[in-house]
Amino acid sequence: MKKSEKTRGMILSKCAPVFNQKGFVGTSLSDLEMATGMTKGCIYGLFNSKEELAVECFEYARELIHEKMHCEAAKKNNAIEKLRAIFDMYRTFPDFWPIKGGCPILNTSIEADDTNPLLQEKVVRALELWRRLFSSIITKGIRCGEIRQDANPHMVATLFIALLEGATMMSKAYNESSSLGIVLDKIDEMINQMKT
Amino acid sequence: MKKSEKTRGMILSKCAPVFNQKGFVGTSLSDLEMATGMTKGCIYGLFNSKEELAVECFEYARELIHEKMHCEAAKKNNAIEKLRAIFDMYRTFPDFWPIKGGCPILNTSIEADDTNPLLQEKVVRALELWRRLFSSIITKGIRCGEIRQDANPHMVATLFIALLEGATMMSKAYNESSSLGIVLDKIDEMINQMKT
Repeated sequence: MKKSEKTRGMILSKCAPVFNQKGFVGTSLSDLEMATGMTKGCIYGLFNSKEELAVECFEYARELIHEKMHCEAAKKNNAIEKLRAIFDMYRTFPDFWPIKGGCPILNTSIEADDTNPLLQEKVVRALELWRRLFSSIITKGIRCGEIRQDANPHMVATLFIALLEGATMMSKAYNESSSLGIVLDKIDEMINQMKT
Repeated sequence: MKKSEKTRGMILSKCAPVFNQKGFVGTSLSDLEMATGMTKGCIYGLFNSKEELAVECFEYARELIHEKMHCEAAKKNNAIEKLRAIFDMYRTFPDFWPIKGGCPILNTSIEADDTNPLLQEKVVRALELWRRLFSSIITKGIRCGEIRQDANPHMVATLFIALLEGATMMSKAYNESSSLGIVLDKIDEMINQMKT
């Protein structure tokens, strides 16, 4: 790895939590300088603009979470257990998120939907990847006879994501996990109903 | 109504959609001047600060939506129909929201949770009022024998809000209503299961 790649990685790891908490517009240059301990010149020597840096920070955060979910799922042998392993991560609210500030898809989506088409496009792609992760586990589960034939992978994946994101918003607002707990119990019930 | 009250009302109606789309930090003074056609001096003659204006715009938007839900519910005679009337409003995505930019509770919560305690406090109160609207309809429905005794009003209300807010985020991200449609069908199924 070249030195500049190492430095880019360091900048992403330091700036991603700032963007995730303060938002794209709410993050100032001095926030980024303070987070990285680097000057404007150094940061913008490696990233062309604040927007490019924000986009890469979003991708960095998204990948971390996506990988964490993949890893948890990979430890289990069947579809039902894979789904449960992913949802169990949410029981450790708010420590589950590798990047401070909660879910970067939710945070970035709300800020970008009316204002920033480039970030918005990344959000849509992230939602698609996430929905595909859930729906491919469900599809394989149906094929292996672990999940009922009448389960609709796309619809169930959409419901899981809506429930998780809505409850994440609520639990962050109240700063306690009970809304998320109610939703995770409902998801557990939905998983039980899908079981063959 | 005094002239200053009329002017305050006009300012709220013009600025609420700006804050709802651009966020508190993302809204500039010139955005507010352009939206109202008034100068900084006139606006801040009636509101002490941008934060005070943002808080009152949030309350203005929240009340509009809350009243709309109350009105729809009031037209129906039983709990099941009251709930259905409220959820049917969401089928008109994105026209349902009286303020451009989608749900102000969701938008404000995501921006404020890590950055603005005053707005955050208003979000929590708004979520409580909303949860109480749903849970009081459900409680009365149980008392009148329209809803099953084993329904838990607090839990069901929490699930409804999480589903609606999560799907609102997704439908705004994709700029189409299918995620919201999937969630509204699920809510309809949940309502049917609660019926006596």
